[in-house]
Amino acid sequence: MAEKGQRGDLDLHEPADEQAHDAMQECIEECLNCHAVCTITLQHCLATGGEHAEVNLVGVLLDCADICQTSANFMLRGSPYHVVTCGACAELCRACEEACRSVAGDEQLAHCADVCATCAEVCDRMAQMGSEE
Amino acid sequence: MAEKGQRGDLDLHEPADEQAHDAMQECIEECLNCHAVCTITLQHCLATGGEHAEVNLVGVLLDCADICQTSANFMLRGSPYHVVTCGACAELCRACEEACRSVAGDEQLAHCADVCATCAEVCDRMAQMGSEE
Amino acid sequence: MAEKGQRGDLDLHEPADEQAHDAMQECIEECLNCHAVCTITLQHCLATGGEHAEVNLVGVLLDCADICQTSANFMLRGSPYHVVTCGACAELCRACEEACRSVAGDEQLAHCADVCATCAEVCDRMAQMGSEE
Amino acid sequence: MAEKGQRGDLDLHEPADEQAHDAMQECIEECLNCHAVCTITLQHCLATGGEHAEVNLVGVLLDCADICQTSANFMLRGSPYHVVTCGACAELCRACEEACRSVAGDEQLAHCADVCATCAEVCDRMAQMGSEE
Repeated sequence: MAEKGQRGDLDLHEPADEQAHDAMQECIEECLNCHAVCTITLQHCLATGGEHAEVNLVGVLLDCADICQTSANFMLRGSPYHVVTCGACAELCRACEEACRSVAGDEQLAHCADVCATCAEVCDRMAQMGSEE
Repeated sequence: MAEKGQRGDLDLHEPADEQAHDAMQECIEECLNCHAVCTITLQHCLATGGEHAEVNLVGVLLDCADICQTSANFMLRGSPYHVVTCGACAELCRACEEACRSVAGDEQLAHCADVCATCAEVCDRMAQMGSEE
Repeated sequence: MAEKGQRGDLDLHEPADEQAHDAMQECIEECLNCHAVCTITLQHCLATGGEHAEVNLVGVLLDCADICQTSANFMLRGSPYHVVTCGACAELCRACEEACRSVAGDEQLAHCADVCATCAEVCDRMAQMGSEE
Repeated sequence: MAEKGQRGDLDLHEPADEQAHDAMQECIEECLNCHAVCTITLQHCLATGGEHAEVNLVGVLLDCADICQTSANFMLRGSPYHVVTCGACAELCRACEEACRSVAGDEQLAHCADVCATCAEVCDRMAQMGSEE
């Protein structure tokens, strides 16, 4: 369980397990990248207007950017509770991917959907890895 | 399920259901308060030093402050995904409460533990309310 | 100058000067309130659509909410650098007030403009108080 | 002045001026990197304890991480007010660099100081570029 984890035990900081360390590094990078891409896409949507500025799309882009940032910060701090935030992050990334795909013919949204899909997958793996400990 | 929710349907903004609206208002206030109290407590712990500045205690105070802020922001934006972040927030609040109670004889930590306990309870209720919809 | 300040010296935590302590409390509350009101207003603008969802208005609401949160966090942590963030916060609050006032006949935007104006004033005072030390 | 800038005019999104676009990209990357390094360093300091967990050092690492994140977000959103946050960010990076250098013989702190120095320089340039427009 996550609750029993100690910050001092974390692989990121004492990489007894090289593989787990690499997995966390990858997850941090995906979350930071997804945060950046969602924020740029949000700006693109607002600038484009019309259905792009629709409240549910803009809203889920904000949500996804927010939780990606939080999730990355938990991992950067070596928090044993990254399992909780990675799980939440995976859910939001999937929701954001779906919303981005619902608007056809927009390259930026298609790119954002792909980034969200990758981030969801990596976060899911991280959440499962943590809860097996 | 949260995923089907529409921002336009949210009680916070069109309070068809007065009770749900009040519950969300209360949850926002508890999260914002818990964020503030954890941040002040963190500063108190660092200033006190010794076991107060221990990495697991300071770490969980940072974690709890972070997710409380994120959770409050989801609700302020009327996000249907507040169910996800309220659930994560409740977990962190309980972990933070436990860590605060583990250091005896400190008024600020005792106060922080109480605030976390209340926030955990309110967030849990909000997460369950949302997932029943 | 802010740079010389010590966290241990801060009035918030050792209120030798009751007046400075109250001023900081007020500033924290104004920043937290302004963050919340800007975030709710943002959601209102996106839900309303049209000129309300215009990129410059939504953008400055996001900017203002962001820096208000950062500014509040600096003060909650008793940071001597709150002078820097309060100064930045005052600038954004004034810009956000102006953007809100540019759309006529909307109660939420009028309320947000008033909240931003108050927050700008209080932050400006706090920034000047700090830089005189 | 920043206040007159329009989000639609921003070089990041319509790169009439290739050089300004590259400068902003670089600044975003430096801010995101500095945020990550400060957060990892903070964790390192807490885990090490002693003078590393001292309130002023940990505090300024939190401050610097916070404002770097805010500054990056302003630029990712293409905000004309990035001038304000880049200016604030440069100040905090310099303060954080100084605090890191004050503890001798620690590789992580030396690395963090270097990252902060670079970020301060790039942010300063960005702040000046913006205010000349």
